[in-house]
Amino acid sequence: MTLDTPTRLLWRDVTVFDGLATCPEPMAVIVEGERIAELTPMRALDAARAAGCREMGRGGVMTPGLVDCHTHLVFGGGRADEFEARLEGASYEEIARRGGGILSTVNATRDADEETLFAAALPRLTAMIADGATTVEIKSGYGLSVEGELKMLRVARRLGEALPVRIVTTLLGAHALPPEYRHDSDAYIDLVCDEMIPAAAAEGLADAVDVFCETIAFSVAQCERVFQAAEAHGLPIKAHAEQLSNLGGSAMAARHGALSADHIEYLDQAGVDALREAGSVAVILPGAFHTLRETQLPPIAALREAGVPMAVATDANPGSSPLFMPTLMLNLACTLFRLTPREALSGMTAHGAAALGRRDLGRLYEGAPADLCVWDIDSPAELAYAVQPGRLRQRVFAGQCQE
Amino acid sequence: MTLDTPTRLLWRDVTVFDGLATCPEPMAVIVEGERIAELTPMRALDAARAAGCREMGRGGVMTPGLVDCHTHLVFGGGRADEFEARLEGASYEEIARRGGGILSTVNATRDADEETLFAAALPRLTAMIADGATTVEIKSGYGLSVEGELKMLRVARRLGEALPVRIVTTLLGAHALPPEYRHDSDAYIDLVCDEMIPAAAAEGLADAVDVFCETIAFSVAQCERVFQAAEAHGLPIKAHAEQLSNLGGSAMAARHGALSADHIEYLDQAGVDALREAGSVAVILPGAFHTLRETQLPPIAALREAGVPMAVATDANPGSSPLFMPTLMLNLACTLFRLTPREALSGMTAHGAAALGRRDLGRLYEGAPADLCVWDIDSPAELAYAVQPGRLRQRVFAGQCQE
Ligand SMILES: [Zn+2]
Ligand SMILES: [Zn+2]
Repeated sequence: MTLDTPTRLLWRDVTVFDGLATCPEPMAVIVEGERIAELTPMRALDAARAAGCREMGRGGVMTPGLVDCHTHLVFGGGRADEFEARLEGASYEEIARRGGGILSTVNATRDADEETLFAAALPRLTAMIADGATTVEIKSGYGLSVEGELKMLRVARRLGEALPVRIVTTLLGAHALPPEYRHDSDAYIDLVCDEMIPAAAAEGLADAVDVFCETIAFSVAQCERVFQAAEAHGLPIKAHAEQLSNLGGSAMAARHGALSADHIEYLDQAGVDALREAGSVAVILPGAFHTLRETQLPPIAALREAGVPMAVATDANPGSSPLFMPTLMLNLACTLFRLTPREALSGMTAHGAAALGRRDLGRLYEGAPADLCVWDIDSPAELAYAVQPGRLRQRVFAGQCQE
Repeated sequence: MTLDTPTRLLWRDVTVFDGLATCPEPMAVIVEGERIAELTPMRALDAARAAGCREMGRGGVMTPGLVDCHTHLVFGGGRADEFEARLEGASYEEIARRGGGILSTVNATRDADEETLFAAALPRLTAMIADGATTVEIKSGYGLSVEGELKMLRVARRLGEALPVRIVTTLLGAHALPPEYRHDSDAYIDLVCDEMIPAAAAEGLADAVDVFCETIAFSVAQCERVFQAAEAHGLPIKAHAEQLSNLGGSAMAARHGALSADHIEYLDQAGVDALREAGSVAVILPGAFHTLRETQLPPIAALREAGVPMAVATDANPGSSPLFMPTLMLNLACTLFRLTPREALSGMTAHGAAALGRRDLGRLYEGAPADLCVWDIDSPAELAYAVQPGRLRQRVFAGQCQE
């Protein structure tokens, strides 16, 4: 007679980066069902516990599944033509005249139906999964109408049903001013507050609400109105802020208890202090910094000094970061922003998850959801040091292993 | 009765980038045996010719297989620990004291046997093949003794026998001064000229000879001696030059008919003119520029103006470019060096092949060796625009298709 126990998966002698630090000695890890059942030094592994486990291999580095906490993965069209035109010498005016820039993505996204948007996003998300992502945030922000934004969020939810990945959705209605509101940005903010947020909340389509607080987008006062509407509907908030100038958007967001302030190249000490006091995460986005050839670095030393957790994300989007490869961001965060490999890895695991309000994810501990990666490398630092696709040996999502 | 004809492979309606330009209309391509048998506008495809072909699919973008003309793919050890130590604040002195820098790779390479070097290089080369490479140059340069250099070249040759890729080998004995010659660099150059080059030539292990011409490496006069020895053995030459300063190494190499001058951030107009007159290729290496956070850009506009062909390569190596992903270089070449997507793609196909003296490769034409890639994209520019592993739909090497 055998007891009908669920399969248990056992890894032996792995180097474990738990989301915050590397365990000091080789570990054994047992996954049972959808959870991590055991995470113990190899020398303390109980033989009776190990008996009957499926042996998943020996050695390598285990990390939490990667958490990409800031993407714009759902969009219509592409901007390779604009990328090419600019490099061939076209001026910004010419590109705008040809219909380039963010509004070209807005037009293409508005023109696309859900099926088209879904099919376009699928290979991008598949690439990110193959690179180790197990949780991916997806923002709206190219619909800029109630229906357009809800359409994007529905596609994001469907992607999470179709592929083995947790999708966290963010309503970013206040991303850009749509052409039909060109002369009345406050009226557009009314639409976001009075119709978009209530509709997204009613359908359960948004896990959070985001804004773009910048001279070329929305003012601090306008963004604050959006946050008040989000709060009225019980939705957490976050902000694109201090990317191109220092308006104080991060500090305002922090006062509203933001999950995160993102980009923050121009964040000053008062902003750093505000994030620390609010417990907000600083999300740094080296892909946009690279693509836009920015020179203003985010205040890494001040954030580190203040103990503000730093997340790292792809910002995957067709304009300023067409980079659909989470591990590349580990390298860029170290090389461009001088994060340590440990900080970069925490930024794409524990702190990325915190930026989504999911502190249960992005870490390996007994009882944690079994979202994890095993890499064919010897030390966690190698993930940030080398850019080399194909090192992901195994990826476990909710206890299910893909090899 | 059927004629026993070899299998012919047919692609329909593909956008073809032939190594220099994109064909103006959708094309049909037939591969027969190891060669491209037909490359014709779709509308001109002869139905009788198409009959009996194996249908390989429709649409997508076809390019030559990528040619990575400058790598240091064979090496012992790794430098992730040094990368991490530097980011954690260790000074260059501390790292040198711990045995870091190029000499740590020399020591690890000297200590490794052929089997170990082969096993270490295999996943790196596999990653590059999975990213579209069909020709990869591999340099020696971490042995710095006759036996150490020959060992590296033998491993490179073995890699080419083990995997579906053309390996071109380069003897780079004059890469760095080994510690045992610390006080007599001319004596080391004697060794390179009088023993290393003759031995590599006798065993047929080197397809070319390279040098590192720089204040921290070897002088122009020393490099010229190496070139004279190479010429005496009928080996083509190339140079790492003008990376950190302008010594005139490129112009000297060009006077000796070099296949290429590589790095060349500090190349001046006289150097550009010398390359043009010699028909040498300028190899630009954006991975090292990125990793070392250089700010001196190679003279792209002057090279373009002079009509010097520009190749783009990974410079894959454990110290200054641990980036084992050819398509990433297309993006870096455009974003950092402002190449157009077309120039970047030519740099990793036709001009990369020219930098290896293999003008038969890196281009698609009737009669060409059938080394090619089919990508799941709509325009060639997308390869440089987005970084997204997994877009390689099919890779054909010497007429054999891997999907
Ligand atoms: Zn964003
Ligand atoms: Zn090199």
